[in-house]
Amino acid sequence: MAPKVLVVGSGGVGGIAALALTKNGKSETTLVVRSDYDKVIKDGYTVHSVTYGDIENWRPKHVSKSVQDAAKEFGPFDYVVVTTKNIPDGAMTCEDIIRPAVSSNTTIVLIQNGIGIEKPMIEQFPNSVVLSGISLIGSSNINCVIENLHKDHILLSPFNNPNVSKELAEEKLHEFASIYQNEDKKVNEIVLESDSRRSRWEKLIYNAVLNTTCAMTGLDVNRCQMNGSNATLFGPAMDEVLAIAASDGVVLGPESKQKFLHIGDGLFYSPSMLIDVQKDQLMELEIILGNPLKIARENGVSAPILSLLYQLLKMKQFKIRESKGLVKVDESQFKGKNSDEYPEIFAACNKNGQ
Amino acid sequence: MAPKVLVVGSGGVGGIAALALTKNGKSETTLVVRSDYDKVIKDGYTVHSVTYGDIENWRPKHVSKSVQDAAKEFGPFDYVVVTTKNIPDGAMTCEDIIRPAVSSNTTIVLIQNGIGIEKPMIEQFPNSVVLSGISLIGSSNINCVIENLHKDHILLSPFNNPNVSKELAEEKLHEFASIYQNEDKKVNEIVLESDSRRSRWEKLIYNAVLNTTCAMTGLDVNRCQMNGSNATLFGPAMDEVLAIAASDGVVLGPESKQKFLHIGDGLFYSPSMLIDVQKDQLMELEIILGNPLKIARENGVSAPILSLLYQLLKMKQFKIRESKGLVKVDESQFKGKNSDEYPEIFAACNKNGQ
Repeated sequence: MAPKVLVVGSGGVGGIAALALTKNGKSETTLVVRSDYDKVIKDGYTVHSVTYGDIENWRPKHVSKSVQDAAKEFGPFDYVVVTTKNIPDGAMTCEDIIRPAVSSNTTIVLIQNGIGIEKPMIEQFPNSVVLSGISLIGSSNINCVIENLHKDHILLSPFNNPNVSKELAEEKLHEFASIYQNEDKKVNEIVLESDSRRSRWEKLIYNAVLNTTCAMTGLDVNRCQMNGSNATLFGPAMDEVLAIAASDGVVLGPESKQKFLHIGDGLFYSPSMLIDVQKDQLMELEIILGNPLKIARENGVSAPILSLLYQLLKMKQFKIRESKGLVKVDESQFKGKNSDEYPEIFAACNKNGQ
Repeated sequence: MAPKVLVVGSGGVGGIAALALTKNGKSETTLVVRSDYDKVIKDGYTVHSVTYGDIENWRPKHVSKSVQDAAKEFGPFDYVVVTTKNIPDGAMTCEDIIRPAVSSNTTIVLIQNGIGIEKPMIEQFPNSVVLSGISLIGSSNINCVIENLHKDHILLSPFNNPNVSKELAEEKLHEFASIYQNEDKKVNEIVLESDSRRSRWEKLIYNAVLNTTCAMTGLDVNRCQMNGSNATLFGPAMDEVLAIAASDGVVLGPESKQKFLHIGDGLFYSPSMLIDVQKDQLMELEIILGNPLKIARENGVSAPILSLLYQLLKMKQFKIRESKGLVKVDESQFKGKNSDEYPEIFAACNKNGQ
């Protein structure tokens, strides 16, 4: 029987993942579609993809309105592919989002950015194989129109879960690769890696530095560079990422830094966190800066620029969280109190908020 | 003959200054009112002032639509009082704004925030006495309604201008104090100081740290403090201000730091730069961070937190400047170029920008 795959997250990456799996025909794919459910059931998606061509009214085999519904209607799942944003300080952790669809035999595939994203997964689902997917696709899904600009290209590797055998992890890695990989590697390409850390730290050079600065300043990468930030901010902050990565066993050379300093030359591109801020959406702050800075602290690596960026962005995130009702500020609780004690007063008022 | 005074800047501070001078009756006051000119000529201001009471339809003796008009109609002026925001990277420097009203005998009174604001004034008007005014009034002027919450209280001192004699500076200092000071010190209070630097550096503890952080994060001071910023950001950044001040000969003790860490406890107050950002208005960035950091560099004082805040705010200011047409970005000029060279390419395209 073909493996059952649930794709959670129907943005640009999730939509293309569901399409790739469906096209390849080696698995039975269910996609969770929340707000656009009725539209997708009725008309499907319009796809403009350099990888898979132009398709009208496309729908994966199964579509469910929630993870709960998917588990009831089309489970149990052999694979749960997570392509949502990863925002531990948001309304719901990724662990809680996928929980209804995870059984003891489920392999979890995290096609997401960031460092340390496997830790809470393994903590919550200790017997699951957890795979790392790093998508190098440029893809968006706006009003059920999926636009995919680059070839679908995924770096796939096992995360280290001490509770499962290496053999099992390898088996799942290869099985998932085989159900995703088209027979013609010119179409899409799954690249297997033995360890995700190098690729993740490398991608973090971009995300921890350019993405965060743009979110703070409201400028795209190139406009930051007009203000001299390659020399005064981006470069020194990237050196901090390289130092933390090295303390985690991943040595990235200066060519990695040069690559990301120039990756957007001339493109006037707005990175995801900037778009999040512009749309008053939560940012993937903890997995992009919070977790790497925890590693820096554990390993005694100094990272003053990233630390200040993190503090400022945490406050910016606080504003977005407050606007979404995720934290509440009862100003009357703070009257007459010493501001040194505000964090404790705030924590007492928001037992679930940070 | 009564000295002629021109007040430039009709915000909360300028409106109250014109009122104080008028009420005291020892000078002939002209106020420059740009956008509200017709309204003020017709109806005057509504004043709600703890200092001067509630007044309807108040107008100073003379009102002019521009500094040029004022100079023609009511000059030459003995005093030009500058209460505008001080934004050297804005549409017009303060020097250029007041130039039409400054003659060789004019004393310039800068009732403005910041460090180093006298330098370009003395450079442009080498023979003028330049006085420092630090206003401790809480005052706003919105749609010709002036709300003044605290007693009108000004710290007045001479700036050091090597081209004018100390005697002349002292004479002007006392004359200006006498035309502003009400006979009853309970009404308003001009406090004379021999040097402005101590008071300016002290006020900068607030402005360089709390004001800037709020502008970056979008949070008021108290919400920043809920995120622990007293310990992790405000305190360490204030230490940097104290170190730069000390290198400039002003030793401020830890009690100054404690005072400003707690000055807003319980008030949920949005500082001026935050309001500027919210209104897409230019910030007083150069006089609040740029100039102090120049002094830090000259004196070899390390200020990593303030430096990064400055860089980030400079980019935020860039965005505001671009939205106002003060700088232009022709994206086509940057295509195919190395981003390390963007500052030069940008400078070449914006010879008057920056």
